[in-house]
Amino acid sequence: MDFRSDNVAGIAPAILAAIAAANAGSASSYGEDDWTKRLQSKMNELFEREVAVFPLATGTAANALALAALAPPWGLVCCHRLSHIEEDECGAPEFFTGGAKLAPMDGAHGKIGAGDLARFLDGYGFGVQHHVQPAAVSISQASECGTVYSVAETRAIAEVCRRHRLALHMDGARFANALVHQGASPAEATWKAGVDVLSFGATKNGAMAAEAVVFFDPARATDFLYRRKRAGHLFSKMRFLSAQLVAYLEDGLWLRLAANANAMAERLARGLASLPGTELAHPVEANEVFVRLPRPVRERLAGAGARFHPWVSAGADAIRLVVPFDADEARIDRFLAVAAAAQAPTP
Amino acid sequence: MDFRSDNVAGIAPAILAAIAAANAGSASSYGEDDWTKRLQSKMNELFEREVAVFPLATGTAANALALAALAPPWGLVCCHRLSHIEEDECGAPEFFTGGAKLAPMDGAHGKIGAGDLARFLDGYGFGVQHHVQPAAVSISQASECGTVYSVAETRAIAEVCRRHRLALHMDGARFANALVHQGASPAEATWKAGVDVLSFGATKNGAMAAEAVVFFDPARATDFLYRRKRAGHLFSKMRFLSAQLVAYLEDGLWLRLAANANAMAERLARGLASLPGTELAHPVEANEVFVRLPRPVRERLAGAGARFHPWVSAGADAIRLVVPFDADEARIDRFLAVAAAAQAPTP
Amino acid sequence: MDFRSDNVAGIAPAILAAIAAANAGSASSYGEDDWTKRLQSKMNELFEREVAVFPLATGTAANALALAALAPPWGLVCCHRLSHIEEDECGAPEFFTGGAKLAPMDGAHGKIGAGDLARFLDGYGFGVQHHVQPAAVSISQASECGTVYSVAETRAIAEVCRRHRLALHMDGARFANALVHQGASPAEATWKAGVDVLSFGATKNGAMAAEAVVFFDPARATDFLYRRKRAGHLFSKMRFLSAQLVAYLEDGLWLRLAANANAMAERLARGLASLPGTELAHPVEANEVFVRLPRPVRERLAGAGARFHPWVSAGADAIRLVVPFDADEARIDRFLAVAAAAQAPTP
Amino acid sequence: MDFRSDNVAGIAPAILAAIAAANAGSASSYGEDDWTKRLQSKMNELFEREVAVFPLATGTAANALALAALAPPWGLVCCHRLSHIEEDECGAPEFFTGGAKLAPMDGAHGKIGAGDLARFLDGYGFGVQHHVQPAAVSISQASECGTVYSVAETRAIAEVCRRHRLALHMDGARFANALVHQGASPAEATWKAGVDVLSFGATKNGAMAAEAVVFFDPARATDFLYRRKRAGHLFSKMRFLSAQLVAYLEDGLWLRLAANANAMAERLARGLASLPGTELAHPVEANEVFVRLPRPVRERLAGAGARFHPWVSAGADAIRLVVPFDADEARIDRFLAVAAAAQAPTP
Repeated sequence: MDFRSDNVAGIAPAILAAIAAANAGSASSYGEDDWTKRLQSKMNELFEREVAVFPLATGTAANALALAALAPPWGLVCCHRLSHIEEDECGAPEFFTGGAKLAPMDGAHGKIGAGDLARFLDGYGFGVQHHVQPAAVSISQASECGTVYSVAETRAIAEVCRRHRLALHMDGARFANALVHQGASPAEATWKAGVDVLSFGATKNGAMAAEAVVFFDPARATDFLYRRKRAGHLFSKMRFLSAQLVAYLEDGLWLRLAANANAMAERLARGLASLPGTELAHPVEANEVFVRLPRPVRERLAGAGARFHPWVSAGADAIRLVVPFDADEARIDRFLAVAAAAQAPTP
Repeated sequence: MDFRSDNVAGIAPAILAAIAAANAGSASSYGEDDWTKRLQSKMNELFEREVAVFPLATGTAANALALAALAPPWGLVCCHRLSHIEEDECGAPEFFTGGAKLAPMDGAHGKIGAGDLARFLDGYGFGVQHHVQPAAVSISQASECGTVYSVAETRAIAEVCRRHRLALHMDGARFANALVHQGASPAEATWKAGVDVLSFGATKNGAMAAEAVVFFDPARATDFLYRRKRAGHLFSKMRFLSAQLVAYLEDGLWLRLAANANAMAERLARGLASLPGTELAHPVEANEVFVRLPRPVRERLAGAGARFHPWVSAGADAIRLVVPFDADEARIDRFLAVAAAAQAPTP
Repeated sequence: MDFRSDNVAGIAPAILAAIAAANAGSASSYGEDDWTKRLQSKMNELFEREVAVFPLATGTAANALALAALAPPWGLVCCHRLSHIEEDECGAPEFFTGGAKLAPMDGAHGKIGAGDLARFLDGYGFGVQHHVQPAAVSISQASECGTVYSVAETRAIAEVCRRHRLALHMDGARFANALVHQGASPAEATWKAGVDVLSFGATKNGAMAAEAVVFFDPARATDFLYRRKRAGHLFSKMRFLSAQLVAYLEDGLWLRLAANANAMAERLARGLASLPGTELAHPVEANEVFVRLPRPVRERLAGAGARFHPWVSAGADAIRLVVPFDADEARIDRFLAVAAAAQAPTP
Repeated sequence: MDFRSDNVAGIAPAILAAIAAANAGSASSYGEDDWTKRLQSKMNELFEREVAVFPLATGTAANALALAALAPPWGLVCCHRLSHIEEDECGAPEFFTGGAKLAPMDGAHGKIGAGDLARFLDGYGFGVQHHVQPAAVSISQASECGTVYSVAETRAIAEVCRRHRLALHMDGARFANALVHQGASPAEATWKAGVDVLSFGATKNGAMAAEAVVFFDPARATDFLYRRKRAGHLFSKMRFLSAQLVAYLEDGLWLRLAANANAMAERLARGLASLPGTELAHPVEANEVFVRLPRPVRERLAGAGARFHPWVSAGADAIRLVVPFDADEARIDRFLAVAAAAQAPTP
């Protein structure tokens, strides 16, 4: 009953098998191998256009490198106040961009709104040398509150971006979970809605350590290989990164894993919501449940071995439950049973 | 017969097995797992003192992060002109340090000499605000020419460093190969000889992607966790990095693999040296052979499917042959047979 | 009637004369001259202790270099949302620190409160590798709203800083104006109240281009000379910077100039406040007046040649009036007369 | 007899007068003033085309900001081993570019040769992700050895740059001295010969602190205003920078001052060369004399109050004599007389 994060889970069996399979014979290093070529083809197919794909091993690297490609050192990147790039990357975007600033914005349930963004940018001092210059917007899909931007919401944000010539970045650490919720195609959810660059996450959803930065316009990616290398993110045995991603995409594995996590999160949320004294802090649209629970329930759960983090930004008595790709009904129901027992009146 | 680099090889079976073994159950993320704890213990034991260990996935990350911990933005890092940090990391040291300079030095067979270093530093403008300030020396073990600093050579360099209050970094991408050649203990080869920080490499010698920065004085490592995180090099599922390194060290696997590579390189070198018209460009002390070969021999080898890189810094007709951890006598002898046949007078 | 900024004014005659006086004979460059030595003595005397003084030419350089000496690249600097470092320096603090973040805070009339600061820091994730680490607080004296931190307010902030081991920086672009308002000694207003580093401004108050970073603990300044040089802020003919500052301090010139500006600002504020339909947006404690004026008044003033900037952060109908060091009653009264005439009912 | 550097001299009277003249009334800040507009016109006229001009106060700022506009963080800038950017700016180019590398090259008398440059670039790994990418060449005019690139030499270097798509920067800290030697027009010496960006120096030749970055293609300068501001190099009272430069250019003052310095240097060189036991280390083409002198002569000169720096890169017994803009024959002849007396056989 470990719900601390999706990254407490291990590797999906098919992905581990792909690593083993890739371990046959010698292969060209630094991305000149066949697995990386296959990954490129698969991504082109997936997104229905030619894209530029760069395998990486961490989400922070993907986000920070992507933003560095979009914002100059005097750039400003708009994002949600709770976003990973603002809160949880120890200043990686600032490091990689050479000192760009983030403009954290408010917005319900972890999402920024196109209207708020427009108001901010319409009043901004573009071209004034005293001010950093807005260069990009970054949205998290799914958000840090477990919610999902609809395609329409993404498109509305993209339109504001276009109007002010900003690039739109999507932090897709939980992109698969969001996509499953949306029911949209990868292309519809991204470039067709105006996204310029995607941090395509796989680690949280079953990979060992594999992400990719996907540029929908390869022309934007010209210098990316130098940025990646000088950041120490070019893997010599890259086939093992690419193999993970290939297996992840093969036969829809990524969507099946995400669909399971989402379904288990929904089951968990439904069960908790039915208990007296509990309240969901955010809609459950991906694989995260933010719920306010009475202290006795939290304590009983902890006592029974359940693991989770308190989450004060969702309320003083709130916890975050992240459901991993390999959760099953038994695990969820065990957790719910403990919670229900804690709620029952002691006779 | 792929001798292009050690990183065209795959994963040693025991290391792959460790990744699979680590994939059991959930585990705390970001280094709070048991594998990482075991790695810390193993490293303490290996180096006969308490060290601070940070698992990473690439050698460039290890080197650049280590140097950033040792040199301020206005620092100068002395290194060999052919060193990886100077030649092959696309400016990663400059990026991570915030703009420190490297001072490339000459030196026979890829090694810098304590005397040259002393001459350079004795004449340097320490404390003069117009000049970057010498902060560290970095030596590659084994060097880019496949040679190895003796313990005495390392100690002599360290003494110069101490005199001028510089830190000594060792790029140990091929540390195992060097150690096998030296016959010294890990402690003797490093901190007992005056090394402050080691980039401990495993990827080239059988890991999938695993390195570690080892601080022999943990007090120097205080801020390293922030540097690592903001560089995107903190792995969420870190157990899979640590498991590779644990398996690498277990039962002396790392030394066995390196001993094999070194032995095969020596066999290769001996065989080539016995052919007419060939000349070794550097002593063969680790797993690399730099050899000048007549063009017909090079062409015959290439025609027979052998793969290797030309290496102009070792001579116009030189090639580099890197022997991977899993090379065997058959592969070496096949290569030698082709070379010998090419040398034979055509009747 | 130019009230756009204090920097539309020129050079105070005594300071210009000092530049001319310094232009006698040759002098050692880069700060080894006599004027710079005199400046050092004067500053020691002024602050009643040995300080480390670094002359500079712009306030942005002073602030950004000072902060870089206090915060590492993964540092967080708390400041007011309206502060110059956050709003008007195009990311200079981020550039000089190598990517540190600013944490903009709210607070009435441009000042942050010790209580808010304590709440923020008490709840902060110190030591957590995912988060940038609070390293410094920067307060503006006088603030961007023309208000002044009392010595007690400064001390309260400093106490919070000490508790969490943060350094306290004071942006003293209008330090003289603040000091005149406080009636405190330079020492009382700074290090005796817990300030670690001061950006000592002179440009806005009559210098041509002269500021100084003052470290109250010279040990913090060890590396500052390298930072200054590599930022291009070491002047070869530094005597001309130092001469400005020496003249500025001589015979209390700086306080006389500031006292005049403050008095004229107060006269202006009093006059405006007496008119119907006007409202001061902030208390007038230094040389700036933020006032909401009916549109006809603003238009009449502009029509009469008065120059000022609209200031939306103080209200939709607000303007900022900055009173330069050389303002006199005639200029103020002329402005007031125009404003009064605009208010008068048209017969 | 102070020959330590050109920056031990003060301000030329006409330039000081211009500062005083600019101190009339209020003026728009940050470059919106009339003096800056006049400077822009004058520069357009001087260079016979529309240029983009940015006044600055130090040569290091000019060089580092110019290079940052030309080279990305993974860029390589070719320069002479003795150049100011490599040797005397404490890593400013690395800081401003975000970590670009300099490639120091050898070359007689402080100048790099087009042939050497071509050889270096022809063999470079352009497009290889492991290597920083050549982006610019920087030449010093006059050089650090007091020599001058002929227009033909500049053009030859520019042609190599064009072939490899590198930008050509000229560090013109002593541009006037070089121009006087060449007898070329400013346009012929720069953009007509293929220079893209010029650091136009005035401080060494009579200004208080005034330089300018001149972009011959204004399109390259788009982002320069943000770079300048975030580096703390945007002066609020910019009229006083621009006024210096306007006066410097007015009526050919800059060329007259440089012509005097050059002539006095030549007189000094001729006089010294005629003494037994002396040897000029470099041709004297601008205002610097590098000369090897017997120790007794050096000691006698020092004893007589002459000031100069030893200059080991020109020989163990060499000194550098820099002749300021305001030197006169008396000063030169006094120095020569002391030197001659020291040479004379003691009876």
